[in-house]
Amino acid sequence: MNALVDRIKKEGQNLGGGILKVDGFINHQVDTVLMDECGKAFAERFKDIQANKILTAEISGIAPALAAARYLQLPVVYARKRKPVTMPDQVLLTLAPSHTKGRTVELIISPEYMGKGDRVLIIDDFLASGETILGLVRLIQVAGAEIVGIGILIEKQFEDGRNKLEKLGIPIESLAIIKEMTDSQILFVE
Amino acid sequence: MNALVDRIKKEGQNLGGGILKVDGFINHQVDTVLMDECGKAFAERFKDIQANKILTAEISGIAPALAAARYLQLPVVYARKRKPVTMPDQVLLTLAPSHTKGRTVELIISPEYMGKGDRVLIIDDFLASGETILGLVRLIQVAGAEIVGIGILIEKQFEDGRNKLEKLGIPIESLAIIKEMTDSQILFVE
Repeated sequence: MNALVDRIKKEGQNLGGGILKVDGFINHQVDTVLMDECGKAFAERFKDIQANKILTAEISGIAPALAAARYLQLPVVYARKRKPVTMPDQVLLTLAPSHTKGRTVELIISPEYMGKGDRVLIIDDFLASGETILGLVRLIQVAGAEIVGIGILIEKQFEDGRNKLEKLGIPIESLAIIKEMTDSQILFVE
Repeated sequence: MNALVDRIKKEGQNLGGGILKVDGFINHQVDTVLMDECGKAFAERFKDIQANKILTAEISGIAPALAAARYLQLPVVYARKRKPVTMPDQVLLTLAPSHTKGRTVELIISPEYMGKGDRVLIIDDFLASGETILGLVRLIQVAGAEIVGIGILIEKQFEDGRNKLEKLGIPIESLAIIKEMTDSQILFVE
């Protein structure tokens, strides 16, 4: 998706070690206009999968998930990383190693909002190692729901996340795909 | 705002101790249609304050902030509770006691995205003790920016948050105001 790729080219910062900083328009400050365009692009790509719910992980997945949800007219569930007091004692919890955080994070959803019969589209900001998204997939499966698609703002093709997800046999759509990050530049799959 | 009040009456759960559970449409699962209506209501109430940026706190403030931002066509900065690797070493950080979490949380923003000349509207999901919002106000002030309005989805009038904020002399708008939560019911300011 050109608007996103152009913005990464203009403002994305390669911090080394495969870390891409997009804090100015996605991860800390959100460019609402750009995010809305991304939501529209997701909705177009997933208009035929008959999802009835979107699942994402807090925190940075929330903005793209809500943008897509607005065009698809679907509710969004965001997996929590800490169980809030309002959640029931019995929750669905999985562990996912986080590369950028250097630790394992918990992903928690309440069975109140996901179950048998749900057709779930996952939306997240990054696809790198794929571990967070695999964690979300496990939550969907243990809830008895069905995973029907995965939408990503930025895919780092040089990590092996997509390989791990392809065995699911569902559509995986990334709006911007980075082929390689060298010390000096960011190369995109055009 | 009637749609929000009606939904709380229908689905909000009084968990006791002043805790209102709205996980089914705001805090864990987001009803995108309702949230969009809330965004529109915020935009109407704050159309004349000439804000150029919205500030909220992760996690639950993100959805209402983005909804308002979409109608006001403004960027959203969300204060982080943990410093991510992409943030510079020099950040703006304040501490806010969290009543519902029973601990003090850090609120962190990068000076890259807020500074002198910014006119900032705060949007959050709840106004209870007011401590989180006061924390956001301090971040705005220390950044050299100006706070020009505060918008809240649900205000708990029985806590003293509004009193603490009123000395700022700026518009404070809550879409739903709860007068009292007794063991058996939730009473609204109609």
